[in-house]
Amino acid sequence: MTTKLEPQWIVGFVDGEGSFHIGITPNRELKKVQQILPEFTVVQHQSDIQILYALKAYFQCGVVRRDNGNRMCYRVRGRGHLRDIILPFFEKHKLKTKKRIQFEKFRDVVLLMCKDQHLLPEGVEKIEKIRLSLSNLLRRTPEG
Amino acid sequence: MTTKLEPQWIVGFVDGEGSFHIGITPNRELKKVQQILPEFTVVQHQSDIQILYALKAYFQCGVVRRDNGNRMCYRVRGRGHLRDIILPFFEKHKLKTKKRIQFEKFRDVVLLMCKDQHLLPEGVEKIEKIRLSLSNLLRRTPEG
Repeated sequence: MTTKLEPQWIVGFVDGEGSFHIGITPNRELKKVQQILPEFTVVQHQSDIQILYALKAYFQCGVVRRDNGNRMCYRVRGRGHLRDIILPFFEKHKLKTKKRIQFEKFRDVVLLMCKDQHLLPEGVEKIEKIRLSLSNLLRRTPEG
Repeated sequence: MTTKLEPQWIVGFVDGEGSFHIGITPNRELKKVQQILPEFTVVQHQSDIQILYALKAYFQCGVVRRDNGNRMCYRVRGRGHLRDIILPFFEKHKLKTKKRIQFEKFRDVVLLMCKDQHLLPEGVEKIEKIRLSLSNLLRRTPEG
């Protein structure tokens, strides 16, 4: 049986354990152009894997995968799922910690990508600026 | 202005970031007898100190103190506050991760102490057993 979650529980848990990350990986096909990879993740020890499946059941998208060692990860990468499910959820149910700023920058990148801005040099530049400000933010407020 | 918190947000956040700890310190006055110190804590980077004050405002007990370096801590140690405020809250609003087992062991110790069982050898033995099972639990499911 899947644990039933309430929106405010999810917000509290993500305020603690969630991450809105904008990855950049070299794209072999496009050669020099980088691939921008926004992802929403929640990592937990494998003993709490049922919580990750509960999140997957709640959002009806994403996957549960091994993260590292005995840590598991709930992850949403699909751009449509981020735009239509994850962003509206956290727009409606506001995060209460500084993670909200992280979310807002993440949202801006996803929305730019939904307008295919990441395929244009000026769009890539905008995204890079946001990524940089996000990295600076994370450096100022380490979570560890 | 203090951030307003909802019970389910608190449960989610504590499922992620909270800790129910049973400390043991040597008691100088009582010499050989150890002092048992149950405490409920939530640690955050100082940039999110407003969340710790929001928890304090919600529970109307506990203190906000520096934990370590740039990390701050919301902490409840008062036995009456634990018994009358913290325990009933998490009895009503159940934790959803394995932290619930941690909470239940913590609750058992606090209730034993409220019956002054920690002043009797058999009570101390009971508490020690619970503490040990809690330590084993935390070793099996490291949060780091």
